Amino acid sequence: MDVIRVATRSKPTAVAGAIAASVRQSNEAKVQAIGPMAVNQAMKAIAVARSYLAVDGMTIVCVPSFIEVPVDGGKRTAMRFQVEPR
Amino acid sequence: MDVIRVATRSKPTAVAGAIAASVRQSNEAKVQAIGPMAVNQAMKAIAVARSYLAVDGMTIVCVPSFIEVPVDGGKRTAMRFQVEPR
Repeated sequence: MDVIRVATRSKPTAVAGAIAASVRQSNEAKVQAIGPMAVNQAMKAIAVARSYLAVDGMTIVCVPSFIEVPVDGGKRTAMRFQVEPR
Repeated sequence: MDVIRVATRSKPTAVAGAIAASVRQSNEAKVQAIGPMAVNQAMKAIAVARSYLAVDGMTIVCVPSFIEVPVDGGKRTAMRFQVEPR
């Protein structure tokens, strides 16, 4: 299962669709964001995915954590959101 | 139980302490943020609170949602994070 990378310009509804698809298929989604604006987009997307999956009777929760990721030869701290059914 | 309001300038570790205290006392915390920077601070705080509570053997999850809040006579869309033990 691929990590869903969220950028500042990602559309929350598009990301939400990817999250919902991943949860339906794999029972989880891994969402990653670097920087405040991307984190904000990710959280909007997870809130929207929650409403998408509620239609199927699923309730999702997210578990946030920090993760070091390689970026342009250096390292940055990203936020990782593990999304799972409750 | 009071809602924990997170602002752009809130310190994630201070907010994390409030979240951990609320979860220990009330088995939940309600965290609210308006705007991208505040949402980012809130998520950092929840990730830090997760490590605080892990010491006690507790695993927390968060459930994000949108909520309309009255601000200066108007209304704004805030993000609400319900934090609970898994």
